[in-house]
Amino acid sequence: MQHRFLLAVAALALSGAAHAQFQKPEDAVRYRQSAFNVMGAHFSRIGAMVQGRVPFDAKAAQENAAIVATMSKLPWQGFTPDTEKIKSRAKPELWMEMDKVRAGADKMMKAVADLDAAARTGNLDSIKKTFGDAAATCKACHDAYRE
Amino acid sequence: MQHRFLLAVAALALSGAAHAQFQKPEDAVRYRQSAFNVMGAHFSRIGAMVQGRVPFDAKAAQENAAIVATMSKLPWQGFTPDTEKIKSRAKPELWMEMDKVRAGADKMMKAVADLDAAARTGNLDSIKKTFGDAAATCKACHDAYRE
Repeated sequence: MQHRFLLAVAALALSGAAHAQFQKPEDAVRYRQSAFNVMGAHFSRIGAMVQGRVPFDAKAAQENAAIVATMSKLPWQGFTPDTEKIKSRAKPELWMEMDKVRAGADKMMKAVADLDAAARTGNLDSIKKTFGDAAATCKACHDAYRE
Repeated sequence: MQHRFLLAVAALALSGAAHAQFQKPEDAVRYRQSAFNVMGAHFSRIGAMVQGRVPFDAKAAQENAAIVATMSKLPWQGFTPDTEKIKSRAKPELWMEMDKVRAGADKMMKAVADLDAAARTGNLDSIKKTFGDAAATCKACHDAYRE
């Protein structure tokens, strides 16, 4: 319970919005899923360029990376203790290993900030490198904590 | 059909991401709903301060307004012509009045940019005024085009 409480506090601090809150736990779940969805959509557009499926467009990469960086800070506030009982793809392990989840979230936000910085330089090699690092942080948590 | 095509083009131009696209129409619907959800969550946090339900916090208002402004540009790209057949709360009128939808979206983005500017000044009266104006632009489209 202490870990859960700490995560909730950390999530609020993270969001920067002191009064972050949801009326119902379902709203928190929907919010975090929405934030992940938007983040993923824009992340995958960078991926398409990195993998050569669409031509590299430095401006588009930069705009997408900025959105990803903004979104990366948001979903965590939706993992409030009262959402454990709400059906989602979150595995039971997530609620038992909040310190690891927290560390993974920090790692992801750092990696995404690096991708954002690389995208601002317009250097495709840097974007490829940081995109791969960021993708690995997504995968680590999805493998461990998402059905 | 021409209006629909124009909207799709406008949406892509709007997003700034020349290669914005979704694999399936369902993805586009989910994306626009997600963007609206995140936008609404942060908009309502400013609303809580504007309405005195939580104490005014200039920093939180600014952070929330910045997220709302970022999100306001996103959902439109999810109204692709191929999503008309996907179940959502979009009324049939939406697909028939794309020029009006487009004008409403522009109005909303402008109002939200004004709210963002007001939030950066930290002046609660300006925030209240621009919040009300922005809320009216949300309502106008919801009343006309959302079940």
